[in-house]
Amino acid sequence: MSECPFSNRRVLITGGAGFIGSNLAAKLVSLGARVTLIDTFFPDCGGNLFNLEGIVDHVRLNISSVGNEASLHYLLKGQDYLFNLAGLTSHMDSMEFPYKDLENNCLASLSVLEACRKVNPDIRVVFASTRQLYGKPDQLPVDENHLLRPTDVNGINKMAGEWYHILYNNVYGIRACSLRLTNTYGPRMRVMDARQTFLGVWLRLLVENKPFEVWGGEQLRDFTYVDDAVDAFLMAAASDAAHGRIYNLGGCSVVTLKRLAEILIEVNGGGEYAVREFPKDRKTIDIGDYYADFTAIRNEIGWQPRIDLHDGLARSLEYYRLHLRDYV
Amino acid sequence: MSECPFSNRRVLITGGAGFIGSNLAAKLVSLGARVTLIDTFFPDCGGNLFNLEGIVDHVRLNISSVGNEASLHYLLKGQDYLFNLAGLTSHMDSMEFPYKDLENNCLASLSVLEACRKVNPDIRVVFASTRQLYGKPDQLPVDENHLLRPTDVNGINKMAGEWYHILYNNVYGIRACSLRLTNTYGPRMRVMDARQTFLGVWLRLLVENKPFEVWGGEQLRDFTYVDDAVDAFLMAAASDAAHGRIYNLGGCSVVTLKRLAEILIEVNGGGEYAVREFPKDRKTIDIGDYYADFTAIRNEIGWQPRIDLHDGLARSLEYYRLHLRDYV
Repeated sequence: MSECPFSNRRVLITGGAGFIGSNLAAKLVSLGARVTLIDTFFPDCGGNLFNLEGIVDHVRLNISSVGNEASLHYLLKGQDYLFNLAGLTSHMDSMEFPYKDLENNCLASLSVLEACRKVNPDIRVVFASTRQLYGKPDQLPVDENHLLRPTDVNGINKMAGEWYHILYNNVYGIRACSLRLTNTYGPRMRVMDARQTFLGVWLRLLVENKPFEVWGGEQLRDFTYVDDAVDAFLMAAASDAAHGRIYNLGGCSVVTLKRLAEILIEVNGGGEYAVREFPKDRKTIDIGDYYADFTAIRNEIGWQPRIDLHDGLARSLEYYRLHLRDYV
Repeated sequence: MSECPFSNRRVLITGGAGFIGSNLAAKLVSLGARVTLIDTFFPDCGGNLFNLEGIVDHVRLNISSVGNEASLHYLLKGQDYLFNLAGLTSHMDSMEFPYKDLENNCLASLSVLEACRKVNPDIRVVFASTRQLYGKPDQLPVDENHLLRPTDVNGINKMAGEWYHILYNNVYGIRACSLRLTNTYGPRMRVMDARQTFLGVWLRLLVENKPFEVWGGEQLRDFTYVDDAVDAFLMAAASDAAHGRIYNLGGCSVVTLKRLAEILIEVNGGGEYAVREFPKDRKTIDIGDYYADFTAIRNEIGWQPRIDLHDGLARSLEYYRLHLRDYV
């Protein structure tokens, strides 16, 4: 970005010790922003103190749940930007613990927005939404006019969370927009299990010199490298055109999971995988092929992914070769 | 209906002392069903003991919130059908008390479905959804493929509530469907205020020989008489084709609000109204013109509205001329 709208500005990131939140925080610190992070550090989520290695002395870290509006009043006051990334992301967990997902996605977003309305209606907000809202696509690529038909509790609650943001933009003038993320990957992602994405598990097993499993294998997917996702958040926050808008993010290329596995092994210079049938309990909430049309965000605010899959996977492998022990 | 799938069957209605719930209960009692009603009797909702006049000795009434899953386990066990009508409906209240709306729409529906999953997965469920989910229509009439863009907290939470039903149908095989109701009117509706529909207030003022206000006046709307809505619930519950489906309900005709006011005065044999500008706080969440395309439910399960506006308004006026004191 040629000018910097974040220099010396006050920025709050919910989910700030998580995967994308911490990458965003690092970038904002480098841009001279005054950064506050909120994170609950749920063991099943992305929050990890190691994610803040190198920036922990340059941010203010507040360990709390965003579902408590009262504490948000203080934390939100005087902030220029809010990146609302807190939330649960696991499809399977949301089916097993639907109330917890409701609390941490619906209620949490509503609390954040109520607090904005009451103490800081001039803030700019970017919400981290997900392609999961679309469910099984009718046609590909999927643009923002595709019907929303979420296939798990998480998708439904994220849908509500997203729409609270759009509503508070439209009714209360709180400048908010929503980014529907596709599979995002890169340094600082959760690799202990597949709660953020299966790709985390693949990376870990590869670094551990173990074979990984590809379920199905023919499904098409797109992948956004985390630095590209971070750019999208920053550009959306800085752009007046984004207010009240919902944008898909996407990737540089579309690949089958099998092809992704092959690229990963290629980039790693070795490794093994086995193709396995899709487990039954996951089949019911699987969405088949998906890749995004991200024309809207490209045309309206100029974002597009830049880091290709080879490069992004290489950087990710390099990170976890160095730091795996802090993620398992 | 030529045969009766409800005779001697066990039926649970949430929101059973409310407007549509009590009309549905009366019909089911007359069909020989064994009916249990759950109602919270929130003062701001439709629950009214007088609604059960004439059937109160033939139903079991359980005064409770459906947001408590534990109590639902007992209430749901052994039921053949569930009509899930409990919920808040006021757009304005949902903006003022969004957490209450979340609890009584999102959490309540999730609790009901979790209880079904655990103790009675063979039950058939019909959910009362709303046209409010569509927001401001892109084109008219609105069919079920129109994007959902709710314009208030209530619409967002009802959207989540609806999708939990579809999800539990798809993933757990709980046979559920959702009816998107448009303006429903008739005997037993709330007339104390506009929390269910503005038409209630019009009816009350007319019966009280007072002038009523028409806000705007040019907005197009469709109206379903409550007996038609009750038929839709029964037919959807009895139909295998309905499982996992979402259907719009609609009305016999489409009228402007001004025309509706004129018909009402005509049917009443007198009365007055004044046209007033739309209040500012309501303008932001108003949806403009709306009327439904109900081809899907007509083609798939054979429902269509039968009671025309004149007839329905005449029956409604007759009811409130007799019983107004029990509703104010």
